[in-house]
Amino acid sequence: MNERSLHEKYMRLALENARAAQGQTAPNPLVGSVIVNDGRLVGIGAHLKPGEPHAEIHALRMAGDHARGATIYVTLEPCSHHGRTGPCAEAIVRAGLARVVVAAPDPNPLVAGSGIRILRDAGIEVIEGVLREESERLNEVFNRYIVSKRPFVTVKSAVTMDGKIATRSSSSRWITSAEAREDVHRLRHESGAILVGVQTILHDDSQLNTRLPGGRNPLRVVLDSTLRIPEHARVITDGEAPTWIFTGSQADPDKRKRLEAAGVRVIETSGERVNLNEVLDALGAGEISSLLVEGGGQVIASFVEQGLADKLVLYMAPKLVGGKDAPTFIEGLGISDMNEAVQLTGLRAEPLGPDLKFEAYFPKQ
Amino acid sequence: MNERSLHEKYMRLALENARAAQGQTAPNPLVGSVIVNDGRLVGIGAHLKPGEPHAEIHALRMAGDHARGATIYVTLEPCSHHGRTGPCAEAIVRAGLARVVVAAPDPNPLVAGSGIRILRDAGIEVIEGVLREESERLNEVFNRYIVSKRPFVTVKSAVTMDGKIATRSSSSRWITSAEAREDVHRLRHESGAILVGVQTILHDDSQLNTRLPGGRNPLRVVLDSTLRIPEHARVITDGEAPTWIFTGSQADPDKRKRLEAAGVRVIETSGERVNLNEVLDALGAGEISSLLVEGGGQVIASFVEQGLADKLVLYMAPKLVGGKDAPTFIEGLGISDMNEAVQLTGLRAEPLGPDLKFEAYFPKQ
Repeated sequence: MNERSLHEKYMRLALENARAAQGQTAPNPLVGSVIVNDGRLVGIGAHLKPGEPHAEIHALRMAGDHARGATIYVTLEPCSHHGRTGPCAEAIVRAGLARVVVAAPDPNPLVAGSGIRILRDAGIEVIEGVLREESERLNEVFNRYIVSKRPFVTVKSAVTMDGKIATRSSSSRWITSAEAREDVHRLRHESGAILVGVQTILHDDSQLNTRLPGGRNPLRVVLDSTLRIPEHARVITDGEAPTWIFTGSQADPDKRKRLEAAGVRVIETSGERVNLNEVLDALGAGEISSLLVEGGGQVIASFVEQGLADKLVLYMAPKLVGGKDAPTFIEGLGISDMNEAVQLTGLRAEPLGPDLKFEAYFPKQ
Repeated sequence: MNERSLHEKYMRLALENARAAQGQTAPNPLVGSVIVNDGRLVGIGAHLKPGEPHAEIHALRMAGDHARGATIYVTLEPCSHHGRTGPCAEAIVRAGLARVVVAAPDPNPLVAGSGIRILRDAGIEVIEGVLREESERLNEVFNRYIVSKRPFVTVKSAVTMDGKIATRSSSSRWITSAEAREDVHRLRHESGAILVGVQTILHDDSQLNTRLPGGRNPLRVVLDSTLRIPEHARVITDGEAPTWIFTGSQADPDKRKRLEAAGVRVIETSGERVNLNEVLDALGAGEISSLLVEGGGQVIASFVEQGLADKLVLYMAPKLVGGKDAPTFIEGLGISDMNEAVQLTGLRAEPLGPDLKFEAYFPKQ
């Protein structure tokens, strides 16, 4: 095995360990680390929870004296700042490592490169960019959040092969298989918040919770410009997770008070319709680093048209429903000229039971 | 290599040779054959053109004396009937083959098994079912045609990831990449006929020809219940391929005469709207074994709703256009209850440039 593929092998292990903590590190990134001394694995670590040690620190503790002269693999540039657990770059220097292999630089432009500089200044060999793309994809949420202080926005939908999300008479249960629906619950588990328009509540009385063993419920966010939400809606009464409702400037103050008395946070945005930029700012301020937008078609259209979506996750079932009036997952006005269509990148498809799951990225804003 | 995988290896070669004649054997099936004597390849053959020898005959001629005691691989059960080139099963017996390996039985229920019986009665060992599914998929067109005397119907469309075939203002050039559009021309090359509604002619003045080097133009079929087609439409004037127009019972007889004078075949079906069953019967009677339905959404809906489609080929571009009023590829009324959606089977996806190509099958009628 040549040196590059050896590096990739250990970095892949570090990425696997990082990924295993999905959903529990927000607002921090997923980071994994592996220490190898003379061909022998001597330490592994991952960042597990905000406030707890970074991945490198766990790996260094496991390695103990074996860290001296060893190579440490880290999926993200070691930090240089004196945060909750001290700068990892300095800990690596103190432990006497000979070499550091890094997947991706710190996405924060203010500090990117400074951890690596500390290491190189101390005479440690640094190799950068091993499995960089995989690491960046793993931390797409963190990378968006750290730069913009807004959550990474994933738009999710489930469609038939003829692009419909329901029949003409709004029948939509179920489009996709149990496997695909379970995957949606995994997405929810990994998301800081889940967002729908009030129509979805009015139509389905959705609970917007995570139905998985050990699943974490995301914050529930409802866009409801005039507070049409019923006070008996399950997102208000079931106590499963906090619920925030964003309104426009015309919402009824009495209803707002009643909802607040029921434990809901109601946030007014400027303008008659809900201002999505203010929604994202408020979620970011609340340390919500990932947002799953589940619909309906008008809400998704607003996110797409305003360039506020980062990623698309689409489940497609091998079914046809037909119908001129059956809805698709992006409504709104839409574009007029095909040449101005939103171009997605990084399209990936994978089978999920009988269905297909697609992931793709919106143009960078 | 065990015996089964050896059989599959040679059958795969036979299938490859069969596939290479795609588009030139209609209304006959694609068939390939390979002869192996004592581990040595001694003959290969494929059916190339109606009226010319079957695959086994070509392979036997190539093998000559080496056929004696050899194993012949055939992708389809050797025929037993005295057709244009005589029964292949008897030719195999006469040539003294020791063993016949067959992928799929003859799809014609009237003769299925009779070729194999001739072989076994002559003391030849017969092994059936090697790569049967691949062979049947290869001859899905022939299999439909031989049983029903109607063409195999493929519905083709190109969509964005939000399921639209055009923007709200009918802009649709181009949804998919050059690679996907070239694949459509390959589909046309392989099809006996291509069918659209008159709307497509009115909107695009489509030529419905094959723009590929060496490409064969299919018969062009237009559904036009009241003969709204302009007499200067390119499918009428360009002479690239024959054009058939199906009308309902209300079409103007004078216009019909003018169109016929221009070389178009006009066929009246019963009822005010075009009767699709009569269309398929007429095409079958004309020895058209494969039909590519390219749209628009109303025509496709009619084929799907009447259960007349066999296969779906869908190209999907990683783009979004949005819009409540942007059309999808199946219009019409559509179904009402999601549980009654048309369930497709055998879904396959493959990348095609930046796009994805899907193939799936409609429920058997």
